[in-house]
Amino acid sequence: MKVAVLLSGGIDSTTCLALAVAKYGANEVIALNIGYGQKHDKELKAAANIAKYYNVKYEVLDLSPIFAFSNCSLLKHSSEEIIHKSYAEQISESGEGTVSTYVPFRNGLMLSTAAAVAQSFKASEVWYGAHADDAAGQAYPDCSPEFVKAMNEAIYTGTGKEVKIYAPFVNCNKAEIVRQGLELKVPYELTWSCYEGHEVACGTCGTCIDRKNAFIANGTVDPISYEQ
Amino acid sequence: MKVAVLLSGGIDSTTCLALAVAKYGANEVIALNIGYGQKHDKELKAAANIAKYYNVKYEVLDLSPIFAFSNCSLLKHSSEEIIHKSYAEQISESGEGTVSTYVPFRNGLMLSTAAAVAQSFKASEVWYGAHADDAAGQAYPDCSPEFVKAMNEAIYTGTGKEVKIYAPFVNCNKAEIVRQGLELKVPYELTWSCYEGHEVACGTCGTCIDRKNAFIANGTVDPISYEQ
Repeated sequence: MKVAVLLSGGIDSTTCLALAVAKYGANEVIALNIGYGQKHDKELKAAANIAKYYNVKYEVLDLSPIFAFSNCSLLKHSSEEIIHKSYAEQISESGEGTVSTYVPFRNGLMLSTAAAVAQSFKASEVWYGAHADDAAGQAYPDCSPEFVKAMNEAIYTGTGKEVKIYAPFVNCNKAEIVRQGLELKVPYELTWSCYEGHEVACGTCGTCIDRKNAFIANGTVDPISYEQ
Repeated sequence: MKVAVLLSGGIDSTTCLALAVAKYGANEVIALNIGYGQKHDKELKAAANIAKYYNVKYEVLDLSPIFAFSNCSLLKHSSEEIIHKSYAEQISESGEGTVSTYVPFRNGLMLSTAAAVAQSFKASEVWYGAHADDAAGQAYPDCSPEFVKAMNEAIYTGTGKEVKIYAPFVNCNKAEIVRQGLELKVPYELTWSCYEGHEVACGTCGTCIDRKNAFIANGTVDPISYEQ
């Protein structure tokens, strides 16, 4: 069975890819990187290296024109600065709601894109590394189990029952993802998560904080370097 | 209230636009044309003329790279010919299933794109001209009421409850759309539906047949010219 895996180059999607390759073999897996106009190309380079490491078919698509009208702080054209706080702190300060790094319906678009590509290649599943930590407090509503369920229904119906979503981590936290990844010997040194595009990861943005904690929770240390 | 209307340049989406303008006024409406790599630019030119006629904000996006892997007969790079039969005939010959002009999850992608654009502009609805004739027999599964319902749920959840889909014709046939459009004095002479890109519409492809019949059912004649 053929599957398409959304691969951003971060630790969630890389672990997702590792699981898909372990289950179906590299020949059955298409890794798909989707640009959305982010501030830097560190993730893109990481994704390419990871796809090469796993020896899977790799496709890159760019959706940045769609997000040209948004001022989200992750976007290259945005005037907003990235906030250097954990998601939990950002939500507790602003009340429940999306964080400043939420890109309008980005993950819905990525899943729709992956569904179209999957159907074109006769792949029957789109693998998606969304997890519970990102969905908490509605930080990223497009990572929640409710969203994944609805989007799966839309994709399954809209493709004439040919494509489904598989989101292995939708009820896990990031620590559990890293636990599974360490077992699968995922090359986390190749991944990139930081929202900033400096030489090494900043260590203080929302995703850096989450990532470091996920390794600590597993009694180990993140193999990448940090500014702080 | 601001709304985004998916405008292909055909009669369904043009009637949808007319309804939105009648309800909210031209200042509150954004018309969005989404290219997907179709064989010709007749629809795009029609959409631009229609947006101008209604004096609404108009944006154009191109998703063709996403469909580069599909061989659907509507696509410019495809080696497949467009079939000159009604949808009903195509389905009765092949059994239930998508028609040769089904583009993989195209409408899911268009709705996701419109949701992202709508949220960026703080518009709270995406208007979508899907109708029952296109969904019949699973010809276009991404036009069915079940699909629209699931996609609406996905968009509503994924945007943090900021954007919904409104599909006024999802339970109507094309004749009913034309009936409403004639009442609203929609300039159907500006629209383009034909899958071929000739000087005038062919009159024999699936969408030309459906369109001509919808006018006949209203006791009138389609104002555009046909080869046959």
